[in-house]
Amino acid sequence: MARKKTVDVEKTADDMFKEFKEVSVTEFFRKNKSHLGYAGKIRSLTTVVHELVTNSLDACEEAGILPEITIKLKQLGQDHYRFTCQDNGPGIPIKHISSVFGKMLAGTKFHRNIQLRGQQGIGVAGVTLFSQMTTGKPVKISSGTGSGVVHETKLMIDVRKNNAEIVEARDIKDRWRGTQIEGELKGVLFSLAEYGPFEYMRRTAIANPHATFTFIDPEGRKTTFERSSKKIPQKPCEIKPHPKNMDVDEFIQMAKASKGRHVSSFLETEFSRVSKSKVAEIQSTVTFDLKKNPRRLAWSEAEEIVKAIAEIDFMAPPTEGLCPIGDDQVKKAVLNILEPEFEATIARSPSVHSGGVPFQVEVAVAYGGNAGRNISDGGLRTEVMRFANRVPLLFDAGGCAIQKAVNSVDWKRYELRDFEHSPFTIFVNLVSTHIPYTSAGKQSVSDDDEIIKEIRMALMDVGRKFKRYHSKKRREFEKEARYTALMKYSTELASAVSQINGKDEQKILGDLQDLIKKKLRYSGGNKE
Amino acid sequence: MARKKTVDVEKTADDMFKEFKEVSVTEFFRKNKSHLGYAGKIRSLTTVVHELVTNSLDACEEAGILPEITIKLKQLGQDHYRFTCQDNGPGIPIKHISSVFGKMLAGTKFHRNIQLRGQQGIGVAGVTLFSQMTTGKPVKISSGTGSGVVHETKLMIDVRKNNAEIVEARDIKDRWRGTQIEGELKGVLFSLAEYGPFEYMRRTAIANPHATFTFIDPEGRKTTFERSSKKIPQKPCEIKPHPKNMDVDEFIQMAKASKGRHVSSFLETEFSRVSKSKVAEIQSTVTFDLKKNPRRLAWSEAEEIVKAIAEIDFMAPPTEGLCPIGDDQVKKAVLNILEPEFEATIARSPSVHSGGVPFQVEVAVAYGGNAGRNISDGGLRTEVMRFANRVPLLFDAGGCAIQKAVNSVDWKRYELRDFEHSPFTIFVNLVSTHIPYTSAGKQSVSDDDEIIKEIRMALMDVGRKFKRYHSKKRREFEKEARYTALMKYSTELASAVSQINGKDEQKILGDLQDLIKKKLRYSGGNKE
Repeated sequence: MARKKTVDVEKTADDMFKEFKEVSVTEFFRKNKSHLGYAGKIRSLTTVVHELVTNSLDACEEAGILPEITIKLKQLGQDHYRFTCQDNGPGIPIKHISSVFGKMLAGTKFHRNIQLRGQQGIGVAGVTLFSQMTTGKPVKISSGTGSGVVHETKLMIDVRKNNAEIVEARDIKDRWRGTQIEGELKGVLFSLAEYGPFEYMRRTAIANPHATFTFIDPEGRKTTFERSSKKIPQKPCEIKPHPKNMDVDEFIQMAKASKGRHVSSFLETEFSRVSKSKVAEIQSTVTFDLKKNPRRLAWSEAEEIVKAIAEIDFMAPPTEGLCPIGDDQVKKAVLNILEPEFEATIARSPSVHSGGVPFQVEVAVAYGGNAGRNISDGGLRTEVMRFANRVPLLFDAGGCAIQKAVNSVDWKRYELRDFEHSPFTIFVNLVSTHIPYTSAGKQSVSDDDEIIKEIRMALMDVGRKFKRYHSKKRREFEKEARYTALMKYSTELASAVSQINGKDEQKILGDLQDLIKKKLRYSGGNKE
Repeated sequence: MARKKTVDVEKTADDMFKEFKEVSVTEFFRKNKSHLGYAGKIRSLTTVVHELVTNSLDACEEAGILPEITIKLKQLGQDHYRFTCQDNGPGIPIKHISSVFGKMLAGTKFHRNIQLRGQQGIGVAGVTLFSQMTTGKPVKISSGTGSGVVHETKLMIDVRKNNAEIVEARDIKDRWRGTQIEGELKGVLFSLAEYGPFEYMRRTAIANPHATFTFIDPEGRKTTFERSSKKIPQKPCEIKPHPKNMDVDEFIQMAKASKGRHVSSFLETEFSRVSKSKVAEIQSTVTFDLKKNPRRLAWSEAEEIVKAIAEIDFMAPPTEGLCPIGDDQVKKAVLNILEPEFEATIARSPSVHSGGVPFQVEVAVAYGGNAGRNISDGGLRTEVMRFANRVPLLFDAGGCAIQKAVNSVDWKRYELRDFEHSPFTIFVNLVSTHIPYTSAGKQSVSDDDEIIKEIRMALMDVGRKFKRYHSKKRREFEKEARYTALMKYSTELASAVSQINGKDEQKILGDLQDLIKKKLRYSGGNKE
């Protein structure tokens, strides 16, 4: 290192560090509330609705309950609203109520390899924080498990400590089961626009046909999105991680926590799709004995295993952990809401993104009918509906893997000439046990190559279907035009021919029209 | 509440919550590393360089040192690199080294109202985390304050506890002053593209003309961006918050922490631009006596004050806390790097965004020369260079307030016909004591209305300058064309006139050309 004279630094290092301080995660998000989606009046209100609905849906799904969720917004003053969210979920045991709603990074979702909408342990505590930041008031939670007592808790967050502060608590005798959260917000604004709570609810209903949603807007208008299916979705379950693309750090962490005696048994029991023969394949590549204690695995050894795994073929991850909406349900929802003249859906097989996390892509396109989005100047735009684990993503499309995949497709090749301005709706649902969001606001998926590839493939598939439909439609249209033209002139033609050869005009006309019909007229769908 | 029978929920609430767990902030970001910008091989490497450079620049600036920063990348294997960052900053006192580099949300920057590049207390600890996550190895920090001892520390982060773990430490006798951090990374890739570390360094050099940067790329090529100015930028200083747009929550927090005896004195001493007469104005609006103890202020009273403030005019926030690059410096940098045929710069007066935080906007445009961005197919695209507190923002342009402001301008009105494909570079630097980023990755500014408005105004200003230049250039071009054409035919014309009136042809030609010159030829810049 170069030797230098101490310069007369005006502020010495010691001085600079005298204000060194540690802050809590709540303080962090309080100062950076835009990270959680609390930016702008309209978006902030949508974020609140989003967190509440997500939380309720997850609770119902995990408990195997057909969800009934009511969101009510009431205007109390300028930019001042009261929100209420009520669900018929399993309720929350009293000892966990304050942590769920009043402590960030505390919860059940974070560390489990399970497909849930929420996954960060921040969202619903974020609602409490935002409510108290804008109004200075606590939120009120009522929760019953059906056991005969409903717990009512008013709580705030102690920001410095990231702890819930119970302001008031009482028990009510009631066999009601479910959870209700109620609070006030300031600095927010209700809007019926694309980014508002109503559109959020509508899209949530499309992606969750098994749930009934009631939305009561600030004008008191009540909209109910009835469930179109009574099939309780398969319950999300924890699945073992898939060995492919597992990173070394994750692998070491698992090995350290493992109770297995050998690395070989650790591999077999704690990962999916790892059989004895796969372990043997790994053993043949690595330079050490897999009989080793997994808790003593060195970084370099773990690296060898991860590298070996990368070069071996494994079965795709099990699908039990993933809960796609299902082709039928997507189709039903699309037909029901968009009434298109053409629709196509496709679900790709599950795949794996970095970190060994399984994911699956469902795509639908709709053309004509109510597809596309009407814009204020009266024009029409192609609409892209993005979903992650059935949750609509309304914001930050710019950096989102789903949008990138959509943009990467050359839609002209699929006969969609003016992609931007067509009566075309693209629906993409990405399901995964861990969605790699770009930010805690969870509105945009990080551009993982595997994810983009899968979405792109699915879009090209439905694109081809659209092309077939459209080409056929175009050909039919052209034939129809020729048919109409020829039929129109057939009378004159028949009269002319009759004058020339003296045959009966009506006979000629009949023959002529039969000929035209035979050559050009066909009823939809049969051979060309 | 409706009374319901307990349904046979397959998984009871108690079951669901048995895995309830609290995670540390490091664990959170470990699992969500994309929030910090660690997404994709190229971007991850740029993020590391960004965090290191940012950290060094801040340290130098606070200590009033002209920065000399060297970044070296060395390839060790496929997707495997070593990084070194050395600066001539003030060094870090030994007791703080482990917290700065090994503990998230610990630091000096978070809670101070001061313009620094870093503001979150996450960035550089994020580098340590990412390095150990991909290689299993500690980072090595050497730091000296010029006192005669250089401390060398190898450290890792205990992810579960969010604590630094010192792996090795030793002291070396050396009077060197500065900080060096060295570590390894896997799963990253060096690229010369727009999103790579080299472009990052180039743009950082543009926005920091007082610093010298040396960049040694993995091929061993050394590039030095010499400082073009020896003026030490004004040191960032803490400023009192501005009362405008202060939110109630922030206000209450300050009041509670205040040592003042009355709300009135609290207002006068702890805010900028609040004079006795302004306090009197506030008093005339609110329903209670401002002689009240600030620590006893009720939420509703604080609301009254905030509301009163919103309706009163205050002077703009003091500029001492803001460190813009400066018109001259921006111009110098733009001319130096882009060599354009036209450039215009503008700095708006400081303004205030939500939360009472002052900010200021500097904008430059350059046209012709090396302005614009060459794309791979040989075409040219308009280039937008976004900066926040002099830090280049390379990613996530889609959701960024700066990009939105650029897009909101109707460039056709300023004679830029094909905005997308022009030799045009737009430079925007947003400075603030708190930049409202959309995510912890700090690549995109949240769309605050005030910020967008200020940037838009500045862009329209430089747009008008460009239009004047361009209209004039166009008129000159048209005149030039007419002049050339008339001169070309003047000989024939003179000859024809001479034949008609019998005067001397050369005399007529001379007169004619004088006339054309007088009417149409002018040397650039004088009146038309």
